[in-house]
Amino acid sequence: MGNAVADAMALITRGTDEVLLADELEKKLSRGKPLTIKAGFDPTAPDLHLGHTVLLNKLKIFQDLGHQVIFLIGDFTGMIGDPTGKNVTRKPLSEADVLENAQTYREQVFKILDPKKTQVRFNSEWMNNLGAAGMIKLASRQTVARMLERDDFKKRYQGGQPIAIHEFIYPLVQGWDSVALKADVELGGTDQRFNLLMGRELQKEEGQEPQTVITVPLLEGLDGVQKMSKSLGNYVGITDAPNDMFGKIMSVSDELMWRYFELLSFRSDAEIDALRSFIAEGGNPRDVKVALAKELIARFHDEAAAESAEQDFIQRFQKNAIPDDMPEVTLSVSNEQLGIASVLKEAGLVQSTSEAMRMVKQSAVKVDGERIDDTKFQCALGTAVYQVGKRKFARITLTD
Amino acid sequence: MGNAVADAMALITRGTDEVLLADELEKKLSRGKPLTIKAGFDPTAPDLHLGHTVLLNKLKIFQDLGHQVIFLIGDFTGMIGDPTGKNVTRKPLSEADVLENAQTYREQVFKILDPKKTQVRFNSEWMNNLGAAGMIKLASRQTVARMLERDDFKKRYQGGQPIAIHEFIYPLVQGWDSVALKADVELGGTDQRFNLLMGRELQKEEGQEPQTVITVPLLEGLDGVQKMSKSLGNYVGITDAPNDMFGKIMSVSDELMWRYFELLSFRSDAEIDALRSFIAEGGNPRDVKVALAKELIARFHDEAAAESAEQDFIQRFQKNAIPDDMPEVTLSVSNEQLGIASVLKEAGLVQSTSEAMRMVKQSAVKVDGERIDDTKFQCALGTAVYQVGKRKFARITLTD
Repeated sequence: MGNAVADAMALITRGTDEVLLADELEKKLSRGKPLTIKAGFDPTAPDLHLGHTVLLNKLKIFQDLGHQVIFLIGDFTGMIGDPTGKNVTRKPLSEADVLENAQTYREQVFKILDPKKTQVRFNSEWMNNLGAAGMIKLASRQTVARMLERDDFKKRYQGGQPIAIHEFIYPLVQGWDSVALKADVELGGTDQRFNLLMGRELQKEEGQEPQTVITVPLLEGLDGVQKMSKSLGNYVGITDAPNDMFGKIMSVSDELMWRYFELLSFRSDAEIDALRSFIAEGGNPRDVKVALAKELIARFHDEAAAESAEQDFIQRFQKNAIPDDMPEVTLSVSNEQLGIASVLKEAGLVQSTSEAMRMVKQSAVKVDGERIDDTKFQCALGTAVYQVGKRKFARITLTD
Repeated sequence: MGNAVADAMALITRGTDEVLLADELEKKLSRGKPLTIKAGFDPTAPDLHLGHTVLLNKLKIFQDLGHQVIFLIGDFTGMIGDPTGKNVTRKPLSEADVLENAQTYREQVFKILDPKKTQVRFNSEWMNNLGAAGMIKLASRQTVARMLERDDFKKRYQGGQPIAIHEFIYPLVQGWDSVALKADVELGGTDQRFNLLMGRELQKEEGQEPQTVITVPLLEGLDGVQKMSKSLGNYVGITDAPNDMFGKIMSVSDELMWRYFELLSFRSDAEIDALRSFIAEGGNPRDVKVALAKELIARFHDEAAAESAEQDFIQRFQKNAIPDDMPEVTLSVSNEQLGIASVLKEAGLVQSTSEAMRMVKQSAVKVDGERIDDTKFQCALGTAVYQVGKRKFARITLTD
């Protein structure tokens, strides 16, 4: 394989889950002609978060390599909704809904994808023309046993949970989309593996060269444990305000940070290696998170927004945050000395109890981050961080 | 239940396999309004035999009771054929094929059904309009587990034989036909039970009163063992020539004859009971078979054809057949007396050995049905039926 193809393969496979089949993909790439790269999107959820962009990033890599991306909106099934009526959140969409959602998609995905190298298509275009008889013919393409091999179907069947028959047809619809588009490559989440392979089978039956299937992993959410999802609240929306994005990225663990670099950053492997060396040599992970946050904000907003989000973050958090080191004070106190004014004075945070009282009345006193409004507040024995105004801190341990 | 309804129920249920549910049917009948009676037919096989008429006879009973029969031709699936291509005998039908077959059906079924009380319908009328999305919605109406409860699917699944997914949809198509037609009653073969019940379920879901399901048994073929079928050759086609029909009916066993009366005759139970008494009192079953043969020929041809078939049968078979009773003769003979002429003369079948010789030369002598052409023929010891001309018989036992 030529160097260009090897380089392309390296870019394409970074952070992916599986490439089926890699040698076929190499062959396709080495022809030097633009390939048709397909990815399907649910028309009901145009509110994208960073989890969705893992796949979009991969599409962008194909675009940068000169290939044609088809952003396929599955409006055919979206307009059906959940026919069993059991899933109330999957109401049938009207054509107007679909077009509106598609517009929202466009606004979002073109922050990553190049509009000139992206075709937005709707599968209703060919699926509606299929007709009732065509749908039956499509359903005849696979067997019940084969469908029951799919992990989730198998579990539900064995667990006695109902599977409606049309659920067996949906993977075939997705596969048929690949036939209709003559896709060379289809990308999808790991959970889409079975459906993506269906496209290969149908294309072979139709005498087409089967598509290469690339699965990308699910991105972990900010908690680093569960997948990023809007309903779990552990997400960064790509339309989030710059300040929110900044704060959220800064909150991830030092470990998850590298995962995000791998899947979300457009930095080269060499650049990322340099950042790793920086940490290995004692650099502050906070600085690396800032770099990631700014890259993402620049992508979804712009450079200026990234810069100002950083400044704002410094203003709001770093300057106001509880410092890493502060005076440690241990006070042996009687019951009468547990009043807040007395504790603050003894610890040296105020000059006098009357100053303490005034600060409490000005809402300038916090214990472990909780604002104290009552001048008669009784402190508890044990250790807590006491704060007066923006700058004065002490970690005070009260004993009797 | 009123007398009229009770009488109707008796006529309807005679010879049926199951009525689901009989009390619902009584309720429907007692409203005194014409009911919609549905029966579906395969558009590929318009060559009907008596096995098919069991169901048609039941439809006719409903017509005689004043109800509306819908003769439904399943052209929608017929025009799809077998999409897996595995069943080469199920090639897709063209619209022209369907119309031609429907015409052939009409010619045949109107020998039993009243054309004025019969609507011939095609399910493509509503199935084509369903569209691809409608087909998916229909497929969502049932679960995979429920379909795998159907006996034949269960066996195939457990036996590792493939079931194509569209096979799960066909019972729903049949059920949807009942919704489209607002059927009050659907009739079908015993093997159709599952599919017929699907109609009930879909109708209930659509807020319709569910159809009563009536299953009729499969008719045994002329051999009395396997089901009547063209491919087994044990059938009476309803377009068979009168003489063929007569001969085939005369060939059935005395036991099978009663089964045919039950399922094929329009004679009342009282008339059939009278025939049973006739046999019980020593009557010849042959006469009862003649009555059945003539009834069927009159139905599919006319009375004159029935009469002439009987006469022809008598000419061809009864006149030439070996009679039930004939003289029994025992002759003690020497070797020299075993010549055919001598035996015939001694037994009194001819006046002289020269008459015997002449009859042999005229090919008018048979031994156990075998024509004797040799005047020097030597008879064997033992018992055989000897025949001279058309009328003279003797059962002769030769001993030495």
